Amino acid sequence: MTDAGDATPASERIRLRRGAHLGSYDRDSVHVVLDAGVVAHVGVVTPEGPVVIPMGYGRDDDVLYVHGAVGNAALRAAEGEQVCVTVTVLDGLIVGRSPFHNSMRYRSVVVRGAARRVTAADEHMAALRLISDHVISTWEHARPPTDAEIRKTMVLAVPLAEASVKVRAGGPVDEPEDLDGPHWGGAVPLISSWGDPEPADDLVSGIVPPSSVTDIAGTRAT
Amino acid sequence: MTDAGDATPASERIRLRRGAHLGSYDRDSVHVVLDAGVVAHVGVVTPEGPVVIPMGYGRDDDVLYVHGAVGNAALRAAEGEQVCVTVTVLDGLIVGRSPFHNSMRYRSVVVRGAARRVTAADEHMAALRLISDHVISTWEHARPPTDAEIRKTMVLAVPLAEASVKVRAGGPVDEPEDLDGPHWGGAVPLISSWGDPEPADDLVSGIVPPSSVTDIAGTRAT
Repeated sequence: MTDAGDATPASERIRLRRGAHLGSYDRDSVHVVLDAGVVAHVGVVTPEGPVVIPMGYGRDDDVLYVHGAVGNAALRAAEGEQVCVTVTVLDGLIVGRSPFHNSMRYRSVVVRGAARRVTAADEHMAALRLISDHVISTWEHARPPTDAEIRKTMVLAVPLAEASVKVRAGGPVDEPEDLDGPHWGGAVPLISSWGDPEPADDLVSGIVPPSSVTDIAGTRAT
Repeated sequence: MTDAGDATPASERIRLRRGAHLGSYDRDSVHVVLDAGVVAHVGVVTPEGPVVIPMGYGRDDDVLYVHGAVGNAALRAAEGEQVCVTVTVLDGLIVGRSPFHNSMRYRSVVVRGAARRVTAADEHMAALRLISDHVISTWEHARPPTDAEIRKTMVLAVPLAEASVKVRAGGPVDEPEDLDGPHWGGAVPLISSWGDPEPADDLVSGIVPPSSVTDIAGTRAT
């Protein structure tokens, strides 16, 4: 993101080319999609080629955090290196009069940057809480993490300085000559919602879920 | 996939390390998750680092196809090179007694391999149809693609020879000493379904959606 606003990418490598009219580099728009998403797909280069791993994540202003076990091979390969973090929210399928104009309704963010390993204890703990609370704020209701649990967890920080966002809504953009034809065009929305909480099989009777869990039941997921 | 079955990865680079007990290399299990997913996250290496792009996809036996505009920078960078294609289906959030045991319910496939550009006309057309029909079979109801549309579309094939699949269901696996504590543990399912078809703004009145579209309305998305 730059002070130049939403029309100018912070670097050439995040410049939108295809469907650029659907996208921007606007900081707030990037945040909105990251806050709506649940899973990040993290791309890392290994000696055997790229690898893409789905991960939970959290955000603090213009920093995105991912975490995993200290021994996680993808995180270790990512430490100090260039990564790409992509978050996609799928909103539906778009059906064109021609398959060429099929598409999807989606919101997505692509972040490119160097992954910094978080070592300071306070940032490490804050990042774990951000990741834990990203969708459901259960941290304050849970048993606090032990020192051993914290030591076993590696956190990487990726700056949102180089990020683009793309949003595709609406229906197909078909060829003008197809509009009078016999073929249907439109969209099929994807509707995602959180269901009722399911207690663990080993839950002691009488323990009720925290309000952050019950509050989310029945709500739209994105 | 190898004849050795689901316990043996076809290569070291796809060996599951973390949570290996949740995964396999079983061909049918890989297919089931790929057929349930909608969006693939395709990882490619560029001179400026890795990039991960969300794409639709299709599958024909042990080949996965993705497509895009001939000028698509990520596809061009991928042509003939090693890529990683990851498909994730999110089924819910798992809430542990401790944040350390938070997790997600998910099904995911990670494919690593070289991306081959499809040049033969028959395979190209078949791949376009597979991608188009992956979730909703609209191809036969649509206006057939023109030669110009086909020429503008690039298709890459990625073999499923090196693929792993991971499935996480159920609830948290907490510390034994936490089970008698006061903290709730369980899961919040994510329920996704296809909504009612929405006609395009420019749809001529009287054109009804094909049965493949109306059949999917109200059904579970995965």
